[in-house]
Amino acid sequence: MLPEWTYQDCPEVSHDHRDAALARQAQLTKPAGSLGRLEQIAAELAGLQQTERPRAARVPIIIFAGDHGVVAEGVSAYPQEVTIAMMANFAAGGAAISVLARELGSTLEVIDAGSLAQSPLPGIVTDKPRCGSRNFSRQTALSSEEVCFALECGRRAVLRAIAAQPDLLILGEMGIGNTTASAAIAAALLGANAEQIAGSGTGIDATGRARKVRVIDQAIEHHGLAKPEISAEDILCAVGGLEIIAICGAIIAAAQHRLPILVDGFIVSVAALAAVRLNPSCRRYLLASHQSAEQGHRLVLKRLNLQPLIDLDLRLGEGSGAAIALPLLRLACALHNDMATFAQANVPGAS
Amino acid sequence: MLPEWTYQDCPEVSHDHRDAALARQAQLTKPAGSLGRLEQIAAELAGLQQTERPRAARVPIIIFAGDHGVVAEGVSAYPQEVTIAMMANFAAGGAAISVLARELGSTLEVIDAGSLAQSPLPGIVTDKPRCGSRNFSRQTALSSEEVCFALECGRRAVLRAIAAQPDLLILGEMGIGNTTASAAIAAALLGANAEQIAGSGTGIDATGRARKVRVIDQAIEHHGLAKPEISAEDILCAVGGLEIIAICGAIIAAAQHRLPILVDGFIVSVAALAAVRLNPSCRRYLLASHQSAEQGHRLVLKRLNLQPLIDLDLRLGEGSGAAIALPLLRLACALHNDMATFAQANVPGAS
Repeated sequence: MLPEWTYQDCPEVSHDHRDAALARQAQLTKPAGSLGRLEQIAAELAGLQQTERPRAARVPIIIFAGDHGVVAEGVSAYPQEVTIAMMANFAAGGAAISVLARELGSTLEVIDAGSLAQSPLPGIVTDKPRCGSRNFSRQTALSSEEVCFALECGRRAVLRAIAAQPDLLILGEMGIGNTTASAAIAAALLGANAEQIAGSGTGIDATGRARKVRVIDQAIEHHGLAKPEISAEDILCAVGGLEIIAICGAIIAAAQHRLPILVDGFIVSVAALAAVRLNPSCRRYLLASHQSAEQGHRLVLKRLNLQPLIDLDLRLGEGSGAAIALPLLRLACALHNDMATFAQANVPGAS
Repeated sequence: MLPEWTYQDCPEVSHDHRDAALARQAQLTKPAGSLGRLEQIAAELAGLQQTERPRAARVPIIIFAGDHGVVAEGVSAYPQEVTIAMMANFAAGGAAISVLARELGSTLEVIDAGSLAQSPLPGIVTDKPRCGSRNFSRQTALSSEEVCFALECGRRAVLRAIAAQPDLLILGEMGIGNTTASAAIAAALLGANAEQIAGSGTGIDATGRARKVRVIDQAIEHHGLAKPEISAEDILCAVGGLEIIAICGAIIAAAQHRLPILVDGFIVSVAALAAVRLNPSCRRYLLASHQSAEQGHRLVLKRLNLQPLIDLDLRLGEGSGAAIALPLLRLACALHNDMATFAQANVPGAS
């Protein structure tokens, strides 16, 4: 019932380019392996980009925003109107991701994928099937058509971004209540319970978190999401959020266009987990950026078999963790491409 | 017997500026604490720089190079002539730190603080009391005068750098055999044995490492460095290396001029440990950059009570780990300085 493109295979990694990159690393004027993870990530990027000179220069950032009916259950520390207020803050340049985009020279596109805003906001692309998801404590959050719309919203954003020939993509999210929706999706996809997954989000207290855990476990029970044969589509309908599903669609579409994704924190990782469940071939285009302080992130990254580059107790979302890790990839590429070899520099090798 | 300035107190941190920075962080449009370590480092830098707007824009990189008589004992994977060849590579722009300096817009000064080069090398500052240290397996590595000269060499470099009003300083090193000298210094300063400290350096095998451990333990025994009352000065004379001691002097001088140091990996951290032993007040100007793959680094950082920002299995030296971490500090400053407050952006706070 999902769009046909969702299931189309993503291109293979070029093992030749990856191996050539690893061989080049061994010839650069440094002890073999001494640049650690940066050597591996440069080689991985070379394989994904089918090039001997991996790049992380042009990296658009796309933020998807959405609202969540489940906030009626008291699962967030912030009032729901913060979603729209923060979208305006993104566009006005005052949010963390706005600052990061400027510092990194990245374009920033903000997409209203499902907020409660009744009319288009200035500087923001509106591309949504409805205003907010339904409260999944009481009903199915989204219809199958709405899930499809959100996946297409993500794909449309990627097709716009691809025109500028990006090297890499950063996806981010905003949506009061979306750690609750993400934790519910993750719990269903991983066969875990909410206690293992749900964190404190934007900063609810212990009572609030206990309520969040109860809301998620009851929803998993109510919608029958613990059944092993449950499909990703059914999970996304039952407890999904529009911005999370848009990111899921964007990940699949980007991977199909050979565009690696620098995965942000908990919510984007959950969207990636759903994307891999729908289309396992997109997995190879995922690069982890950071280990979030949000509790469930570790389990999600483990299932995705992704190793984060940084672990700085970040838990902001907006794509900010990926943006903060981007300079490490850029330096990895610069070192790979620009260092002299032992032969070029006339430096003796190891004895 | 060391220069008088070595013992002069470094300025206090400005608690007012640090507290003002923490208060500002709480008003920025993000959940409180959600930028994790980046919030803390911005506030720490604000206190050190006595400003409400911390900066990590101007960050000169200074590399000190030296040779080590102890390589005669077969403790390194690379031949000794690599020290001079790599100095030329730094100056020619082909080394990892050369690439990083270009990418980061940092100046790079390379100082021959004690290599075996008989005549000055183009593009390199020569400032050394002798060519290489003596083999500490057989004799005292350096005289007290030579140690003083190396400390002054580090201070001279800092005084040159300070003319450009830097925000932060990165120090690096090059010297075949210098993980052996550093491990010996660290073992003596920490009261540990070589087995706990010595790693594989540039990549010696297990047999080579066993030899390295033996050489260090014998030197500690031979020079009487396990005595609790041993002074840092005596340790540096017995097993020191000129570039390591120059870095030690540079750290003390930088801290005395209120210039924070972004500490690189194992060798620079050992120099920092010696600096703190000589002058405890310089400790507050040290910021850790990365956790090196070199075995002893963890113990040295622990004693310095420094928490690294990244852990990417780096073990190259040259200041490269600090350079790789620098963008994180820059982004921390940009976020701190440029984000909108809740009031400015008209975003509701937590309920």
